[in-house]
Amino acid sequence: MTQTPTIEDLRAEVDLINRELLTLISRRAEVVEKIGRAKTAEGRPQHYDPAREERQLRELEQLNPGPFPAATIKAIFKEIFRASLALEESNDKKALLV
Amino acid sequence: MTQTPTIEDLRAEVDLINRELLTLISRRAEVVEKIGRAKTAEGRPQHYDPAREERQLRELEQLNPGPFPAATIKAIFKEIFRASLALEESNDKKALLV
Repeated sequence: MTQTPTIEDLRAEVDLINRELLTLISRRAEVVEKIGRAKTAEGRPQHYDPAREERQLRELEQLNPGPFPAATIKAIFKEIFRASLALEESNDKKALLV
Repeated sequence: MTQTPTIEDLRAEVDLINRELLTLISRRAEVVEKIGRAKTAEGRPQHYDPAREERQLRELEQLNPGPFPAATIKAIFKEIFRASLALEESNDKKALLV
């Protein structure tokens, strides 16, 4: 494309990235579910692991290419961590009800 | 792999997905910056566009394959929207200072 992209072109690019993000976020949730089930099977009912979260955040902070500042990357991933923990705990509850 | 993956294997998979998410989130932020600059150049200083956010959320809700519930996908993307808006507004301020 030799022309400057229009706002509509750029929004279409954002929509495409949104869909890729959704796919990745969902794949991550599936892996987290497997980890949750493995922990539960090993008799480790505590899913919250602040040290593991801290390691992930530190790595992401180091790799962050910008333009988002580190604090923003942290906030987004903390939202993902919170959601993942809720999913693991909800799966435990469902397993208890079966 | 024929063996069941260990928790460590699964965590390595999460770390890999984290890095892909970081790349995509950063690429999305770059496109949003271009949109912000294009809007500012057109004399549209208002970056917040709730109708556009609503359309994105609706599409993501429709495409959501799970396991995260729709409300979780919404919360994660709202965090990304909030960060994007802050980035556009911070770029405007920087442009004013130049």
